[in-house]
Amino acid sequence: MCRWLAYSGAPVLLEDLLYKPQNSLVVQSLHSQLGAETTNGDGFGVGWYGAREVPGVFRSIEPAWNDRNLRELAGQISSPRVFAHIRASTGSPVQQTNCHPFRRGRWLMMHNGFIGGLARVRRDLALAVDPSLFPEIEGTTDTELLFHLALTHGLEEDPPAAMAQAVGLVESIGRRRGVQFPIQMTVATTDGDTTWAFRYSSEGRSRSLFHSTDVSTLRDQYPDNPVLHELSEDARLIVSEPLGDLHGAWREVPESTCVVVHGGHEELRPFVPADPALAA
Amino acid sequence: MCRWLAYSGAPVLLEDLLYKPQNSLVVQSLHSQLGAETTNGDGFGVGWYGAREVPGVFRSIEPAWNDRNLRELAGQISSPRVFAHIRASTGSPVQQTNCHPFRRGRWLMMHNGFIGGLARVRRDLALAVDPSLFPEIEGTTDTELLFHLALTHGLEEDPPAAMAQAVGLVESIGRRRGVQFPIQMTVATTDGDTTWAFRYSSEGRSRSLFHSTDVSTLRDQYPDNPVLHELSEDARLIVSEPLGDLHGAWREVPESTCVVVHGGHEELRPFVPADPALAA
Amino acid sequence: MCRWLAYSGAPVLLEDLLYKPQNSLVVQSLHSQLGAETTNGDGFGVGWYGAREVPGVFRSIEPAWNDRNLRELAGQISSPRVFAHIRASTGSPVQQTNCHPFRRGRWLMMHNGFIGGLARVRRDLALAVDPSLFPEIEGTTDTELLFHLALTHGLEEDPPAAMAQAVGLVESIGRRRGVQFPIQMTVATTDGDTTWAFRYSSEGRSRSLFHSTDVSTLRDQYPDNPVLHELSEDARLIVSEPLGDLHGAWREVPESTCVVVHGGHEELRPFVPADPALAA
Amino acid sequence: MCRWLAYSGAPVLLEDLLYKPQNSLVVQSLHSQLGAETTNGDGFGVGWYGAREVPGVFRSIEPAWNDRNLRELAGQISSPRVFAHIRASTGSPVQQTNCHPFRRGRWLMMHNGFIGGLARVRRDLALAVDPSLFPEIEGTTDTELLFHLALTHGLEEDPPAAMAQAVGLVESIGRRRGVQFPIQMTVATTDGDTTWAFRYSSEGRSRSLFHSTDVSTLRDQYPDNPVLHELSEDARLIVSEPLGDLHGAWREVPESTCVVVHGGHEELRPFVPADPALAA
Repeated sequence: MCRWLAYSGAPVLLEDLLYKPQNSLVVQSLHSQLGAETTNGDGFGVGWYGAREVPGVFRSIEPAWNDRNLRELAGQISSPRVFAHIRASTGSPVQQTNCHPFRRGRWLMMHNGFIGGLARVRRDLALAVDPSLFPEIEGTTDTELLFHLALTHGLEEDPPAAMAQAVGLVESIGRRRGVQFPIQMTVATTDGDTTWAFRYSSEGRSRSLFHSTDVSTLRDQYPDNPVLHELSEDARLIVSEPLGDLHGAWREVPESTCVVVHGGHEELRPFVPADPALAA
Repeated sequence: MCRWLAYSGAPVLLEDLLYKPQNSLVVQSLHSQLGAETTNGDGFGVGWYGAREVPGVFRSIEPAWNDRNLRELAGQISSPRVFAHIRASTGSPVQQTNCHPFRRGRWLMMHNGFIGGLARVRRDLALAVDPSLFPEIEGTTDTELLFHLALTHGLEEDPPAAMAQAVGLVESIGRRRGVQFPIQMTVATTDGDTTWAFRYSSEGRSRSLFHSTDVSTLRDQYPDNPVLHELSEDARLIVSEPLGDLHGAWREVPESTCVVVHGGHEELRPFVPADPALAA
Repeated sequence: MCRWLAYSGAPVLLEDLLYKPQNSLVVQSLHSQLGAETTNGDGFGVGWYGAREVPGVFRSIEPAWNDRNLRELAGQISSPRVFAHIRASTGSPVQQTNCHPFRRGRWLMMHNGFIGGLARVRRDLALAVDPSLFPEIEGTTDTELLFHLALTHGLEEDPPAAMAQAVGLVESIGRRRGVQFPIQMTVATTDGDTTWAFRYSSEGRSRSLFHSTDVSTLRDQYPDNPVLHELSEDARLIVSEPLGDLHGAWREVPESTCVVVHGGHEELRPFVPADPALAA
Repeated sequence: MCRWLAYSGAPVLLEDLLYKPQNSLVVQSLHSQLGAETTNGDGFGVGWYGAREVPGVFRSIEPAWNDRNLRELAGQISSPRVFAHIRASTGSPVQQTNCHPFRRGRWLMMHNGFIGGLARVRRDLALAVDPSLFPEIEGTTDTELLFHLALTHGLEEDPPAAMAQAVGLVESIGRRRGVQFPIQMTVATTDGDTTWAFRYSSEGRSRSLFHSTDVSTLRDQYPDNPVLHELSEDARLIVSEPLGDLHGAWREVPESTCVVVHGGHEELRPFVPADPALAA
């Protein structure tokens, strides 16, 4: 499917995240090791918090591995909070409006996975989006729909609850339409201060997801690693697959889990979709 | 907005339509004379009937004037029925799925104009699309919505009636949402055998539209014109603006009119949107 | 590096060549089995002989696997002689002018491999191009240089001799500049009537190259194969890697060999670069 | 041809330069008032000095007016020294490597105009480039050649002298090849500290070029102008055409002149190409 990376900590140059690691996201665009697809060449996107309230988003339909603009920007832009995503389309067109991360105001969301049987459920899901949000959907991905469903259910107030309701709705509508496994996802969202990441799938066999462990311990362990060298004490990464093979650097996020990263602290909570029938 | 051209007749090379005329569509992409915008550089598309039942569609987000692939294809592909469109976006993203013509099976549609107050009416219009057609919408233009509304109302059986119903619906929903002039359009659609073109706008001041006059007469009149030279007796063009300044070659399509071209014959009929309240 | 395919025979739809085979070129763009790189996503190109003396060329910087225009064209265009190429850049920019095949008049050329130490030899090679041809170089690939060197040495009169001289020159200049292995190549060129393919490398370990065997025999052997079904008696394919795993369908082209395909006949000849010192 | 803008002063957001002015560069991309062409839609480029010694360069083949990435970056990146360029191709392909500004190390160059009779002189000019610089030429524009000729003649030591020699060479070679007017140019180059701009043409009728006048005076005069409001005392702009119609804000650069901007000071010097015959 796709691969992504969510960083928070002291400002780092994008290239320290995207290019320097041994198994960097750009390397994964050509040769993902743990992805459902080895090639993630159907566009990419980077969201970062910088000069303004609203994060910047740079998206392109070209493969990340040879994109010169990405390399230029990665060498100039540093940010304390970065979302980056490389795409392997599951069918929707390769166009900028289908590249992650998606944005609304200060919020970003990106996703690896899919909504099952999308053609069967797309209309019902679109109708479930708040009418005031509906005109803002610009592309045709399942992820953008999921983002707007989460926004509809209060993402900006309580992200885990909103995601639980959005995913519960996807599962409910999917099952009603005869989809065996309505959702497969690792999702990250942020408001610029906190990052929430979710690993979940209807079948209980979710795409890979890892979070980084304490930086200071790792730095002692691996004094030569260029990424670790740049990272602050409170730096945290959540990634589709480890950026290197440092033993101890990465912990797999368990199934059906929400990871909350704020400052240098992470918290793991169970993630259970909400049954829409109980919401009435 | 946009500019378009619909050709039918004996097979001609695309370049005879797109490049050779004095005020060709490619020239119009840089310097439209009658368009609401002089530059139509936000992508283009060509649909043509060839080896198969289903027409081919080539669409690109680059300006037509310097697109090398368009020039290559135009020099190789000949067809008895061609739709070509250059785009000036009214806001929706520049991406292939927003380029005209749109296709379903043997049917093509392209459009110059807009649905007024789109953000206010998009959701209602989307809901009015037949649920079985809804998942096939790939882009975010008003035109693709209009196409699917016309399909919903029987485009494939009775195009003028279906368009009357679709446009009536757009006007009804628009007015309900407080849009003064819900639609502005010159639209062409074809099934590969007949072309229907519509000139209409809620305000009664529609974008320009012309149809060609009898070829044999013109050929006598202008023996040196390269386009006329290539054209068959039954060749007919419907265009946003004349491809040249030959006196007598072009007739303006009146307001609120549907032009039907079949073989070498054209027929002009009044076009009146259908009131959805009377459809029940 | 790259992968390519050269077809000649009765006209076939491009999609029969590019999409239908089990290990089609489009499949190879994502998962090449024998290539130096598994991914060939840095653009593609197709050259075909059609309505005109001059072949058409369609080139794109997007990966072939998701390119909708390629799929559209492949479903509409049929041709008796097709060159198709998918690119994995060895460093030069991803741009249309660096996509193969290259064209001059009726001639096409495409290449898998590289000129070694290109930065060291580029200027000398450029100077060796006939001054009247020099301004026609539009991109920055080694292949386009090689094509123009071959043209300089009489490609249009005697392709094997011209290639021998061009390659001899590349080797001579390369060695003078301290390049151990100045060239690695499988190259195909055609004038629309005959195809010449070359497998050669300075180190004697050339990239893979195969040619198809007699179609009628194969058709008897594999009655269900969709490609074979479409092919005429005189159909011949030369390919970087077999398009399927039919035993007996493909023969490896030996090292240092030129394959000449004309009509339904192929001839294999030794290929030996010419020593430029002996040319004086 | 093209239009460009060179800014130096206190750091400003790119959007204050590219989008906010009444006749901003992005507006000029659609509707240039003084350009040889009204539309400059064949790509664009921005170079800016930021986190590193080497400036960042963002280039795209899409028209500037609808490029979302440009808008995103312009809203996030601020810089004390910005070069921006919109392109109207005079024939060379629309590709990133043909977009300005061109860069070597800390140096940038951009250009409006052309080298006359390029096909006739390209080879001679390419041979005149220092062999060590030759392999770094990535595109096929006259401007990139001119940049490398200036580098060959010492741009990094004495820009006006190097440009005089490079332009003298272009004129000398051009005339030898029968080109009446070998060069037409407004060129800007910078090392990140000083900007040199040149207005010159063989025929003595050069493309338009303007420099801004003293900011503090203007600010008193026009208290409401958003650009002036953002600008520092030492801010200076050199532009192909004025960004607005403020009387007194812009002075035309005279023919055959070099403008040197350093800090808040500008100096105008005569620019006379050097005769290569006298250089021996």
